[in-house]
Amino acid sequence: MTGGDAIKRVPTGINGFDQIALGGLPACRSTLVSGTTGSGKTLFAVEFLARGITTFDEPGVFVTFEETSADIRRNSASLGFTIDRWEGAGKWAFVDVSASLGEEESAVGAYDFGALLSRVGHAVRRTGARRVAVDSLGSIFLRFADVGIVRHELARIAGALEELGVTSVVTAERPEEYDGVTRYGVEEFVFDNVMILRNVLRRQRRSRTIEIVKFRGAQHRTGEWVFTIDGREGIVVVPIAFLASRETASSAR
Amino acid sequence: MTGGDAIKRVPTGINGFDQIALGGLPACRSTLVSGTTGSGKTLFAVEFLARGITTFDEPGVFVTFEETSADIRRNSASLGFTIDRWEGAGKWAFVDVSASLGEEESAVGAYDFGALLSRVGHAVRRTGARRVAVDSLGSIFLRFADVGIVRHELARIAGALEELGVTSVVTAERPEEYDGVTRYGVEEFVFDNVMILRNVLRRQRRSRTIEIVKFRGAQHRTGEWVFTIDGREGIVVVPIAFLASRETASSAR
Amino acid sequence: MTGGDAIKRVPTGINGFDQIALGGLPACRSTLVSGTTGSGKTLFAVEFLARGITTFDEPGVFVTFEETSADIRRNSASLGFTIDRWEGAGKWAFVDVSASLGEEESAVGAYDFGALLSRVGHAVRRTGARRVAVDSLGSIFLRFADVGIVRHELARIAGALEELGVTSVVTAERPEEYDGVTRYGVEEFVFDNVMILRNVLRRQRRSRTIEIVKFRGAQHRTGEWVFTIDGREGIVVVPIAFLASRETASSAR
Amino acid sequence: MTGGDAIKRVPTGINGFDQIALGGLPACRSTLVSGTTGSGKTLFAVEFLARGITTFDEPGVFVTFEETSADIRRNSASLGFTIDRWEGAGKWAFVDVSASLGEEESAVGAYDFGALLSRVGHAVRRTGARRVAVDSLGSIFLRFADVGIVRHELARIAGALEELGVTSVVTAERPEEYDGVTRYGVEEFVFDNVMILRNVLRRQRRSRTIEIVKFRGAQHRTGEWVFTIDGREGIVVVPIAFLASRETASSAR
Amino acid sequence: MTGGDAIKRVPTGINGFDQIALGGLPACRSTLVSGTTGSGKTLFAVEFLARGITTFDEPGVFVTFEETSADIRRNSASLGFTIDRWEGAGKWAFVDVSASLGEEESAVGAYDFGALLSRVGHAVRRTGARRVAVDSLGSIFLRFADVGIVRHELARIAGALEELGVTSVVTAERPEEYDGVTRYGVEEFVFDNVMILRNVLRRQRRSRTIEIVKFRGAQHRTGEWVFTIDGREGIVVVPIAFLASRETASSAR
Amino acid sequence: MTGGDAIKRVPTGINGFDQIALGGLPACRSTLVSGTTGSGKTLFAVEFLARGITTFDEPGVFVTFEETSADIRRNSASLGFTIDRWEGAGKWAFVDVSASLGEEESAVGAYDFGALLSRVGHAVRRTGARRVAVDSLGSIFLRFADVGIVRHELARIAGALEELGVTSVVTAERPEEYDGVTRYGVEEFVFDNVMILRNVLRRQRRSRTIEIVKFRGAQHRTGEWVFTIDGREGIVVVPIAFLASRETASSAR
Ligand SMILES: Nc1ncnc2c1ncn2[C@@H]1O[C@H](COP(=O)(O)OP(=O)(O)OP(=O)(O)O)[C@@H](O)[C@H]1O
Ligand SMILES: Nc1ncnc2c1ncn2[C@@H]1O[C@H](COP(=O)(O)OP(=O)(O)OP(=O)(O)O)[C@@H](O)[C@H]1O
Ligand SMILES: Nc1ncnc2c1ncn2[C@@H]1O[C@H](COP(=O)(O)OP(=O)(O)OP(=O)(O)O)[C@@H](O)[C@H]1O
Ligand SMILES: Nc1ncnc2c1ncn2[C@@H]1O[C@H](COP(=O)(O)OP(=O)(O)OP(=O)(O)O)[C@@H](O)[C@H]1O
Ligand SMILES: Nc1ncnc2c1ncn2[C@@H]1O[C@H](COP(=O)(O)OP(=O)(O)OP(=O)(O)O)[C@@H](O)[C@H]1O
Ligand SMILES: Nc1ncnc2c1ncn2[C@@H]1O[C@H](COP(=O)(O)OP(=O)(O)OP(=O)(O)O)[C@@H](O)[C@H]1O
Ligand SMILES: [Mg+2]
Ligand SMILES: [Mg+2]
Ligand SMILES: [Mg+2]
Ligand SMILES: [Mg+2]
Ligand SMILES: [Mg+2]
Ligand SMILES: [Mg+2]
Repeated sequence: MTGGDAIKRVPTGINGFDQIALGGLPACRSTLVSGTTGSGKTLFAVEFLARGITTFDEPGVFVTFEETSADIRRNSASLGFTIDRWEGAGKWAFVDVSASLGEEESAVGAYDFGALLSRVGHAVRRTGARRVAVDSLGSIFLRFADVGIVRHELARIAGALEELGVTSVVTAERPEEYDGVTRYGVEEFVFDNVMILRNVLRRQRRSRTIEIVKFRGAQHRTGEWVFTIDGREGIVVVPIAFLASRETASSAR
Repeated sequence: MTGGDAIKRVPTGINGFDQIALGGLPACRSTLVSGTTGSGKTLFAVEFLARGITTFDEPGVFVTFEETSADIRRNSASLGFTIDRWEGAGKWAFVDVSASLGEEESAVGAYDFGALLSRVGHAVRRTGARRVAVDSLGSIFLRFADVGIVRHELARIAGALEELGVTSVVTAERPEEYDGVTRYGVEEFVFDNVMILRNVLRRQRRSRTIEIVKFRGAQHRTGEWVFTIDGREGIVVVPIAFLASRETASSAR
Repeated sequence: MTGGDAIKRVPTGINGFDQIALGGLPACRSTLVSGTTGSGKTLFAVEFLARGITTFDEPGVFVTFEETSADIRRNSASLGFTIDRWEGAGKWAFVDVSASLGEEESAVGAYDFGALLSRVGHAVRRTGARRVAVDSLGSIFLRFADVGIVRHELARIAGALEELGVTSVVTAERPEEYDGVTRYGVEEFVFDNVMILRNVLRRQRRSRTIEIVKFRGAQHRTGEWVFTIDGREGIVVVPIAFLASRETASSAR
Repeated sequence: MTGGDAIKRVPTGINGFDQIALGGLPACRSTLVSGTTGSGKTLFAVEFLARGITTFDEPGVFVTFEETSADIRRNSASLGFTIDRWEGAGKWAFVDVSASLGEEESAVGAYDFGALLSRVGHAVRRTGARRVAVDSLGSIFLRFADVGIVRHELARIAGALEELGVTSVVTAERPEEYDGVTRYGVEEFVFDNVMILRNVLRRQRRSRTIEIVKFRGAQHRTGEWVFTIDGREGIVVVPIAFLASRETASSAR
Repeated sequence: MTGGDAIKRVPTGINGFDQIALGGLPACRSTLVSGTTGSGKTLFAVEFLARGITTFDEPGVFVTFEETSADIRRNSASLGFTIDRWEGAGKWAFVDVSASLGEEESAVGAYDFGALLSRVGHAVRRTGARRVAVDSLGSIFLRFADVGIVRHELARIAGALEELGVTSVVTAERPEEYDGVTRYGVEEFVFDNVMILRNVLRRQRRSRTIEIVKFRGAQHRTGEWVFTIDGREGIVVVPIAFLASRETASSAR
Repeated sequence: MTGGDAIKRVPTGINGFDQIALGGLPACRSTLVSGTTGSGKTLFAVEFLARGITTFDEPGVFVTFEETSADIRRNSASLGFTIDRWEGAGKWAFVDVSASLGEEESAVGAYDFGALLSRVGHAVRRTGARRVAVDSLGSIFLRFADVGIVRHELARIAGALEELGVTSVVTAERPEEYDGVTRYGVEEFVFDNVMILRNVLRRQRRSRTIEIVKFRGAQHRTGEWVFTIDGREGIVVVPIAFLASRETASSAR
């Protein structure tokens, strides 16, 4: 039987991540990144765009729902991510929905993603973006009374991003580090690719891990991989060579 | 007391699976395949049809709710499943419901399975299909407010597939790897046959298993069996001979 | 103090079961058999009637809600249960409610058990049945919004069966192998007699057990007893003599 | 500081029970007996009245909601409890609510306890009953939508029984052998006295225990005490002398 | 840094309790006492007033919702608490709400605490009470549909008691000995001081403990302390000197 | 790669805390402090302002929802926090919402945070406050029927505090010491910084720990750190040098 890996990869440039992803994120598709508070979702989303610009010269669009674009800029400064400079150079564009959410007349009820998606499309075309990050859809979905609608809207977003031809990362919230992947237990089924960032408290110590749960139609390493957040380097997935006890791990699991 | 196994089997052709199924899936019936995200449901469904075509020359119909038919084609390419060629040869037909779902006016409320089932029936007759895969009913069922209706509609689908005289696989979502079989706790009682695909995280490693929970009126091996997803071979259930510690396992449990 | 066991027993004829039941099921009463999917409920119900016919020449009526009577016939064939021949001989009668359920106009709302019970009564009188099996009430009860009504209707069914003077088995679904006996946590209080069939997954192996939880006004062995499902013999409860470690078990617990 | 135990006791006459109750049940008050299905609630209630008649010549009234009075008679026969003879002698009276419940027009909604309590009062006066057993309130309470009403009605029943000057036992259902005492988590706070009957499954064996959780204003032994149900003797609490390891248990805990 | 403990203490006089409370309950404030059924809440509330009268000559008011004042009197008699004599001497006054609750037209809906609080105020002024016990608010709160209202009313009660200038104890129900403090999970945040009475079943034995969870603005010993209920002495907290293994416990934790 | 920590820190002055916070709380932002009852939330909030005044001469505003300002004053006196003197000197201002809540006509329904926030703004400007403490939002949020609105309002509060240019601490309630961070599971995602105060009961002893869960865009030590509440010193985080077994802990986790 013949055939090659038909799904292209986009190397993220994040330290050590592309090794466990066997090349990078599936190209032109969306990857859901789920994690509890402080697990590093926003950092992953920011670094995905930042490395795209600095390492691969690929412009990116950052859609922010929770933090303002000013917050994102400031929080990333210490990592050497000069977002404002990139914005000036037309390599980075914000679609900042955090403000407009606060000004809306009604906090509850359907949120119209149509307008948002056209703003995203516009930003992508203007910058020639190859990467999009959406961080995070948490607060928007609480407006919907029904988990069926949440799923429907998620599919719409994932579909629209795919149509734009970009490779994207969408973050989602998990309230607890229990079993299950996401808040509603449906988000993970909509996306082609799913990752979990964990920040587990064990015997009074926290340790961070990253796991690729699925890449539809593509190989990836499985299980949890330890990572650290370094004040200068950002996310650093512990290199495989360092984990001797892992030598039996193969890509065919 | 006399009597023979009245339920015929359809060998899937999936590596090692037909041994634990003692011949294959019960013929002309539906089998529910339940699993968490990334557990391999879609792959099992695709491979069930693909092996049918390549090994037994049996045409198949693939009903897709979540991924588009284009996605299914692309995701299967690396495994050497030349779906487009099979489509051209009239051996494989898609009933792609993923698109129409997004275009519908209303995302919530009853979904009419009548039209869908007649499309499936048409495709089966056109291709002379012996196998049908439905992947997956997850998003559709979230539209129903009542678990009683979910069950009713499931029974209708299972009944319609049986009337078509095909052997079918229907995938279902489990949000968690806990106790219990399915999302609503009712799906498993409707189907004649039930399997679970697991992708369990233990001590930071994932391992995949497949289990036949029931075959009504037919024997099967019980318990969990390890399998891998190979980039070339697809699903490979670890052969029984390799599991020496299992030698006491008999088919009469 | 004097007195004898006032509750007569109906030996089921099922391999090894009547020993743990200290003679059989309480005569002219209903026994609830609760179990997860694939635990053997339908097989127990079928074999209860089949052994009645073959061993004690007692006719039986089988009420089926989920599977069609055709399915029941086919699924039992390999065990040597020649149901169609028994039907011809007037020893076995089906009350098949599976079909009519699908044809009903409304899937939700009160189900009128009155008509059903009169059909059952008619079949009992026609065949001179001494045994009735009802398999299973699961889907019907999901129609009722209120657990109070579920209980009320169950009491009505149990009462009607008792009035017919037959010994009956009624199966019920458990979604999980957790603590608790039934889906709603009320079914077990309505019935005079309650049994649980378990199919527990432990360290990747399944093992089946049967337990008599209560016989009102009558003795029975307590605790779980291992059984197997044999392709020829059906249910085989492992004989007590084989379980040496059990020798301290007495009937007075 | 001086003072004596102001709460009089009514010895039940049940084998071994009065020792752990330090004399018997608190006189002229109600005791809630909570247990899962088959834990022995009905047997305790029946035996409480039976021993009252045979040992202390105290008449009793048995209020039955779930089983018919005929069932109670038949189920108690093997234990030598000649209820029909006692009924004839005016020592035992049934208030059988099981039948009337089935005949009622509406199964859901408020149940009027007023009429019931006056029937009970009438029976108590007619027989000169000193003991009342109510078995069980489970099905009635499912009719009430609100746990606040359940509590209110329970208080009314307990109050009415107290006003009649009888010593009474009221049984209640627990769906699971978990933590907590009763189905709704409020019943136990209404009654002056609370007992739990357990039937715990541990390593495939069942064992029965009885525990006095509280006697308001009165001493009692604490913790679980093993008991058996004997086909001739009924409930037999294992005598304290047999439990050497218990010698440190004092009544002051 | 200077400053002394600004919160005065009211010694309860309960055996051993004031030692773990480092002097007694915070003066002129309310303390919530939460416990499962039979944990000793009523006894603590009664003894708090009784010791106040006998040891410190401080009159008290007892507000009873669940048991009648007659019950409270009778249940306390064996402990040598001559409540009726104290009532005669104007040292003890009951506000008995148990009866009026039963007579009310409507069992559900808002309960007006205004009238109750003015009755309490009247009794406090009439007797010159320094201590108030409220036992228990459990049944009242079930009337409120909304946990927000429960909290609001609790704050009102705590505020009114504080305004009366008395030191008070308010008992609350816990259905289970699990994690968490109270039934609704909000009661504990309203009160300045919170204690838990536990009656834990471990290996078939019950053991009682008392714990001070918080004293706002004041020190107290932390953790669980064993106590017994003695037929003559009432509550006896095991003296610290007896618990050698506790010697490292300091008040600064 | 270059760049420095762009987020300034505000040293709290709380014993040992600033070491684990690597300098203090992120300046001009809000930090959520979540904890069960009695975990020390109010004390942390008070001490944050008190140390600001005594050590750094920074005025502060204390918004109190649950306790009255009089209670806060009295409860802090023993720690040497002379709040009334600071109030006189214009260094400390209360915004006391506890009273007005009780006087409101309606206890349920939307609470208008607009008026409150303008009172807070006024107090900040009047005192020139650099620090704000809000303790606690627990009771207010129970008024909102929908967790989506809770989140929306939280974002509004956090946004308003940030606009005032102050560094603030907002306390939140956790009913249980389980997994998860907050009552609703959404609060933590709104705030830039999140801490948990724990008061864990293990083997009958309580021990207190403090953990920084996240500082957006800034480093901090991770995991739980033991602290005590001292009658004179208030919160004392156990110094790192004392925890030898922790020497491997680095700030890069
Ligand atoms: N063509 C392929 N080549 C290599 N590995 C593959 C391929 N297709 C699937 N896999 C592996 O199988 C995993 C799951 O595949 P699959 O899409 O069948 O899961 P699923 O159960 O259908 O998930 P979902 O519920 O999210 O649809 C992937 O994460 C990947 O590891
Ligand atoms: N004729 C047969 N020959 C061999 N094995 C059988 C036969 N009938 C049943 N079994 C075995 O018994 C298992 C369960 O059978 P059964 O249909 O009685 O379960 P059930 O409890 O009724 O399940 P459900 O709740 O889904 O209806 C099957 O999975 C199969 O392993
Ligand atoms: N007359 C009897 N002879 C022998 N054993 C008996 C007799 N009556 C009851 N038992 C035993 O006691 C068990 C439970 O009896 P009982 O009916 O009192 O339980 P229960 O708690 O009332 O159950 P439910 O909640 O279902 O009414 C039976 O399963 C049986 O084992
Ligand atoms: N006068 C007494 N003499 C001896 N023991 C007593 C006395 N009063 C109470 N007790 C013991 O204390 C236990 C509980 O008493 P108490 O009524 O205070 O509990 P409670 O927490 O108020 O319960 P509930 O929530 O049901 O009202 C009783 O079960 C009994 O063991
Ligand atoms: N002034 C003080 N002197 C000594 N100890 C104190 C003082 N103030 C508080 N404590 C200790 O701190 C504990 C908790 O205090 P605090 O009121 O801060 O908790 P909290 O988390 O705000 O609780 P709640 O959620 O109920 O408001 C008290 O139980 C007490 O042990
Ligand atoms: N610039 C930085 N320098 C150092 N550490 C940082 C930096 N940014 C983030 N971190 C570390 O990463 C942690 C989490 O960051 P991040 O904001 O990405 O989490 P998150 O998953 O997006 O959380 P939330 O769901 O609350 O938005 C912080 O608590 C901090 O420890
Ligand atoms: Mg984030
Ligand atoms: Mg899939
Ligand atoms: Mg079945
Ligand atoms: Mg009973
Ligand atoms: Mg009490
Ligand atoms: Mg506080």
